[in-house]
Amino acid sequence: MFGLLTDLYELTMAAGYVQAGKATEIATFELFIRHLPQRRNFVIAAGLEQAVEYLLGLSFTPEEIDYLRGLPQFARAPAEFFDILRRLRFSGDLWAVREGTPIFPGEPVLTIRAPLIEAQIVETYLLATISYQTMVATKAARIVETAGGRAVVEFGTRRAHSPQAGVLAARAAYIGGCIGTSNTLAGMQFGIPVYGTAAHSWVQSFTDELEAFRQLQKLLGAATIYLIDTYDTIEGARKAASLGRPLWGVRLDSGDLSTLSRRVRAILDEAGLHEARIMASGDLNEYKIRELVRAGAPIDAFGVGTELVTSADAPTLGAVYKLVELESNGVRRFTAKLSADKATLPGAKQVYRFEDHDLVACAGEPAPPGGKPLLEPVIRRGAILAELPSAAAARSHAAASLAALPAGVRRLESAEPYRVDYSQALRELAEQLRKHPGAGLASPASKTREGS
Amino acid sequence: MFGLLTDLYELTMAAGYVQAGKATEIATFELFIRHLPQRRNFVIAAGLEQAVEYLLGLSFTPEEIDYLRGLPQFARAPAEFFDILRRLRFSGDLWAVREGTPIFPGEPVLTIRAPLIEAQIVETYLLATISYQTMVATKAARIVETAGGRAVVEFGTRRAHSPQAGVLAARAAYIGGCIGTSNTLAGMQFGIPVYGTAAHSWVQSFTDELEAFRQLQKLLGAATIYLIDTYDTIEGARKAASLGRPLWGVRLDSGDLSTLSRRVRAILDEAGLHEARIMASGDLNEYKIRELVRAGAPIDAFGVGTELVTSADAPTLGAVYKLVELESNGVRRFTAKLSADKATLPGAKQVYRFEDHDLVACAGEPAPPGGKPLLEPVIRRGAILAELPSAAAARSHAAASLAALPAGVRRLESAEPYRVDYSQALRELAEQLRKHPGAGLASPASKTREGS
Repeated sequence: MFGLLTDLYELTMAAGYVQAGKATEIATFELFIRHLPQRRNFVIAAGLEQAVEYLLGLSFTPEEIDYLRGLPQFARAPAEFFDILRRLRFSGDLWAVREGTPIFPGEPVLTIRAPLIEAQIVETYLLATISYQTMVATKAARIVETAGGRAVVEFGTRRAHSPQAGVLAARAAYIGGCIGTSNTLAGMQFGIPVYGTAAHSWVQSFTDELEAFRQLQKLLGAATIYLIDTYDTIEGARKAASLGRPLWGVRLDSGDLSTLSRRVRAILDEAGLHEARIMASGDLNEYKIRELVRAGAPIDAFGVGTELVTSADAPTLGAVYKLVELESNGVRRFTAKLSADKATLPGAKQVYRFEDHDLVACAGEPAPPGGKPLLEPVIRRGAILAELPSAAAARSHAAASLAALPAGVRRLESAEPYRVDYSQALRELAEQLRKHPGAGLASPASKTREGS
Repeated sequence: MFGLLTDLYELTMAAGYVQAGKATEIATFELFIRHLPQRRNFVIAAGLEQAVEYLLGLSFTPEEIDYLRGLPQFARAPAEFFDILRRLRFSGDLWAVREGTPIFPGEPVLTIRAPLIEAQIVETYLLATISYQTMVATKAARIVETAGGRAVVEFGTRRAHSPQAGVLAARAAYIGGCIGTSNTLAGMQFGIPVYGTAAHSWVQSFTDELEAFRQLQKLLGAATIYLIDTYDTIEGARKAASLGRPLWGVRLDSGDLSTLSRRVRAILDEAGLHEARIMASGDLNEYKIRELVRAGAPIDAFGVGTELVTSADAPTLGAVYKLVELESNGVRRFTAKLSADKATLPGAKQVYRFEDHDLVACAGEPAPPGGKPLLEPVIRRGAILAELPSAAAARSHAAASLAALPAGVRRLESAEPYRVDYSQALRELAEQLRKHPGAGLASPASKTREGS
């Protein structure tokens, strides 16, 4: 499954590895972000569950292989290549940071150790699924932090970059701290609480707004949220209030939310509906929510869509997947890219978290006292080691991990960067490689990560 | 299929329509963009093929219905609702603008006319799939326009918002004018030319860069593109040149592309490889390409990824799906939303394109002389009327349609808005509705779109 959902060059390289007799060399690739997106001081790792599903299900159908055979790029490919693709399954190891963990540039989110051909082909899909959920979980954490205890619900499927993105956004937003989503499929697939009552079309479909509200109350009882801005928000609030209990509250979706929420609060209170809540939605983000909170707007919950699921102020995450080691005939070689501004550090790594900083070290180094290793084994020789934590567990982990970070890191604007150190051994390795590019450094392959 | 890939409120409303005896009223919804994204003077409609697939395949599995039954929001829903969902198929009509057509705010991209329950449930998926492809096709058109005849290839799957987004971005970018994609699955599914040769990991996996290049040339022959910046771009260019023919050319992926392309061109020319081409990639967009083109950089092709598939400078499209008509017991009622800044126009519409402007009119009005109607029937009573044009046909249509627009519309920055008029009948209808909100206007249902 999904074999062809990759960049063509992964497959031309795969054919080339077969041609050069390198397909079974054991490669180690690391996936990490190069830089923080603008205004971000951390990102929340997310998407591991989908990455694992992909790796465990990876295969090529006969039709896909026939398609490749017909492409000019494979006209000279060795016949053996197509046989290898036909049998290809992921047979390697995956180490990964637990979903919900805040991470920083240069720290591997996951490490693949597998035959070179497999490790290469999986690059594109892994990047796409990890980057997107990581970006949305991060955006959600920012919005939830700003909402200061008020509930935030993810409402963005319609504005996500494709329907699948909507489902994954719901999952990632939940991990990042939202209380739930409007995406029903995500609710079913991932056990996420689902929310939603009615749109403007509901009100418009009745000849009378009050009748629309009455029917909604009949259907939803204490879960009823009236959308009151189809014609006039204040009139809508009066009609909602006139129906009394049961209700959850009302939703505002346009206009000046600060002023309107106060006026609507007064209308609800006058009707004795003190427990009725006000939800606000409509192109919200962490900055607008901060203004509303600072202004003391009586809003109890926020519905956030477009800006959350597209991470609109930073809609890309510069995640990369880089070859750091290659073992062949019992010899391990470290590799790095030295391009201007895009240099990478060689060798498999481990990240240790301390109270106020992280240490990135070579995977084979002894663990430093007091540091918590972030990369854990997930798949070994193609088999999953243990069931992954649920989205709810990832959400709890994110909340606890964020609370443990220095407060400045959780600011909406760029703050003093979180301290990430590199071990002396790693720095020395990088320096040696810079002196001898291309050739890399050879060392006995015995000290693999498993031996660390 | 995909029944649950929708916002929960579509389903609570669906249950409410059943409760209120309104589920079989015939609703007309229109999908359109409210405003142009920043710097855009048009958008290119795309995504219809996926919208049609969704409508024709729409259904709910027994497990999905069981899941809904278990949600608190459906505790009071009429039992009939779940039976209706079990049998639900899309039985209505779809009118749509042809893929590749430039459109403007307020002009329907598609119109759904179906029993209210069906027309409501499909909202979320239709918006997600149409908005995303429309956004990417638009971005691609801008980039291709700026490249001024140089080839542009879409390279962005890894940075798309989910793997599925990568596949759809490839399709949309092709419609918008790219010559092809790196996404292999999109190549197979949509018949799009695929491109790609090797990444940095290919070079790194060999102990010697020259050997990496030699192996690539052996595999790809005249299609060989050497990625020459793994260690040092100029050294890489010399090594590539030393291997002579066959080759397609080289790719630069970092550094100062303007300066490097000149130096690399000189190296290739000195080696007599005048036909060898230079491709550039690395966080490119229409603005950077414009600079390179203006600077006269000898670049023959551009690979564009992140910025294209995320439409990074305008990563959201404010598309909406609004109820405009409702027929019940032989009476047609027009509806509109009057909220501040979010008001909509009532009634089913047709868009007529003239040489220098468009006219939006009521669907039932006589066609104005010389105007080409943009909305065409695609699905009638749940059945597709004709095979849809291929992605390649949509691409040709986009190129021809863009060429026919006033030149100012194709500028990268905001220009004089393209003129969109509204017919007198439509303006009068809107005015009447504003005077009588909620109740709408009733008219005999005989004059539906089919009668126009």
